[in-house]
Amino acid sequence: MLDLAGDIVDLLQTITDIESVSGNEKALADAVETALRALPHLSVVRDGDALVARTDLGRAERVIIAGHLDTVPVASNLPSSRRVVDGEDRVYGRGTCDMKGGVAVQLAVAAAVTGPVRDLTWIFYDHEEVDAERNGLNRLSRSRPDLLVGDLAVLMEPTAAAIEGGCQGTLRVAVRTHGKAAHSARSWLGSNAIHGAGEVLRRLEAYTAAEVLVDGLLYHEGMNAVAITGGIAGNVVPDLCVVTVNYRFAPDKDEAAALAEVTALFQGYEVELLDIALGARPGLDLPAAQAFAAAVGGEARPKYGWTDVARFSALGIPAVNYGPAHPNKAHTDDEHCRTEDLRLCRDALLRWLTA
Amino acid sequence: MLDLAGDIVDLLQTITDIESVSGNEKALADAVETALRALPHLSVVRDGDALVARTDLGRAERVIIAGHLDTVPVASNLPSSRRVVDGEDRVYGRGTCDMKGGVAVQLAVAAAVTGPVRDLTWIFYDHEEVDAERNGLNRLSRSRPDLLVGDLAVLMEPTAAAIEGGCQGTLRVAVRTHGKAAHSARSWLGSNAIHGAGEVLRRLEAYTAAEVLVDGLLYHEGMNAVAITGGIAGNVVPDLCVVTVNYRFAPDKDEAAALAEVTALFQGYEVELLDIALGARPGLDLPAAQAFAAAVGGEARPKYGWTDVARFSALGIPAVNYGPAHPNKAHTDDEHCRTEDLRLCRDALLRWLTA
Repeated sequence: MLDLAGDIVDLLQTITDIESVSGNEKALADAVETALRALPHLSVVRDGDALVARTDLGRAERVIIAGHLDTVPVASNLPSSRRVVDGEDRVYGRGTCDMKGGVAVQLAVAAAVTGPVRDLTWIFYDHEEVDAERNGLNRLSRSRPDLLVGDLAVLMEPTAAAIEGGCQGTLRVAVRTHGKAAHSARSWLGSNAIHGAGEVLRRLEAYTAAEVLVDGLLYHEGMNAVAITGGIAGNVVPDLCVVTVNYRFAPDKDEAAALAEVTALFQGYEVELLDIALGARPGLDLPAAQAFAAAVGGEARPKYGWTDVARFSALGIPAVNYGPAHPNKAHTDDEHCRTEDLRLCRDALLRWLTA
Repeated sequence: MLDLAGDIVDLLQTITDIESVSGNEKALADAVETALRALPHLSVVRDGDALVARTDLGRAERVIIAGHLDTVPVASNLPSSRRVVDGEDRVYGRGTCDMKGGVAVQLAVAAAVTGPVRDLTWIFYDHEEVDAERNGLNRLSRSRPDLLVGDLAVLMEPTAAAIEGGCQGTLRVAVRTHGKAAHSARSWLGSNAIHGAGEVLRRLEAYTAAEVLVDGLLYHEGMNAVAITGGIAGNVVPDLCVVTVNYRFAPDKDEAAALAEVTALFQGYEVELLDIALGARPGLDLPAAQAFAAAVGGEARPKYGWTDVARFSALGIPAVNYGPAHPNKAHTDDEHCRTEDLRLCRDALLRWLTA
């Protein structure tokens, strides 16, 4: 049984040591469910390995506070360990940063705040680190849309205890060059598709990514080849080369605008859209977000990586990222969470929900 | 059981339909072995999937007539089909050109000529279309050098029934560009190795291949990217891109001269030699080659593709290419062999070996 009222660092270590790589969330979901059902002020719903726990006090506002239970694969970094490094007290281990630190804060505050000034919907979900089709929040939005209603969502992804607004969008395209195959000993009979891709790479190298101001936050875009493949055999002039390009775009762009940027850059080439996920505007000008920002303090920053705030945004719910641990430590072998961040985030939420 | 005395077009179709992509030659080698062992005038040795069948009549001269049994991968072009196209009767299918047409001629003549005026060494070998380490002729030259003795070698690679002298050399290098990996959402923290390969491709596109006169024959060189690979994951700026370049060079160049051409072209980049095979000078001024040329008639041309004539050349045996089918059809999806070429080659060999 998880001790939600005990030391929050112990709580983080306990849930970190229940390994929960995507697809293996059941044991942790069971533990969280048991702990939540022991809290009489919350009504709990389970959907697969996702849990939704709510107050229903008839408050004027309802806020959603969400986090995912799963992690990327373990890299010999479990069980967790607590060490002082560079003068900081830290918990090391897979998931401590992304994002069991946030989950520990959620659990501690869920137990502590029995009569919040805003109604609360706590969400703990599965399959965030894998493809969108399996994402637990995505599944909940289809199976139980009634549970995903609120005035503001806080996603407790690692932000080093600062508010990060919105997120960038991301798309991938395949840019193809065509040629004519021939034996490389008689290459003048063919046309080399790989040589033809040189111009595609040249345009990428010459491309200057935009910096875009959205709702007061500056987003730095990026246009990168993330893969290139070509070649049939060691003695054949290749007739096809495929450059996979990833465009990270500011959240002011919709699908058409993002695609237009890419097709303009690769004009004259065959461009196929492989996947796209729109960003989320920071939304910090919205009243619910401003109240949260005032309670937390500090200055908001833009979020670069794509996160599930975009799913809330698509549901019409303004959403921000806010959680313990430095985001650069996500997915790294030396993943860790500064223990001070746990207390900072817990106390900020307590202020916001009880003041 | 192959019918070596029957119609030579039927024989080509039969051996074409025994698929023998490099590494899968066993079934065809078995069929050829059975057919050869039924011929009492030949003594047969098998080495892996290579076969050597010899007469031993004490003639003044011994000639080697060689062909490989393997093909490049099938491209939906099996089983074979016989069609009249552009007024020509042709057999279509993987291997018909490179070089089962030549193998069919070898088999038909091996059966027909029981008392040749020159002693004969017929060679059928494996793994010609892959790296030199696995080449069956290369293996035979190490394991059974006693079988690779002769005054002249005829390699029955496709030449459209004309003598093609010598062959070009070939080398492959890996040209590498390096960068710094980063999450593609924060790509300004990294450096994209694929973008860096654009200049390598630009130099290849701008390169003008030389035409070189050797022993009276003009060789047209070629410099081609035959593969390109790069990329770690769909959301990572890649730190490495590798371009594999194939240089086909005239037979006047030794290893140092060929390498110098490549390292000069890619100055400033990391260049690693992957493999090299020197060419063979045409050697048509040698007496044994002149006797063969007189029997066949027509005018000699340069051979562009690297062929195993260079292995014979390195063993001190003058060697020429001579076989049915147009060499431009090798490795193509519409690979085919003109049936008239089968008869032309068969009859020329019969004249040479029985006159």
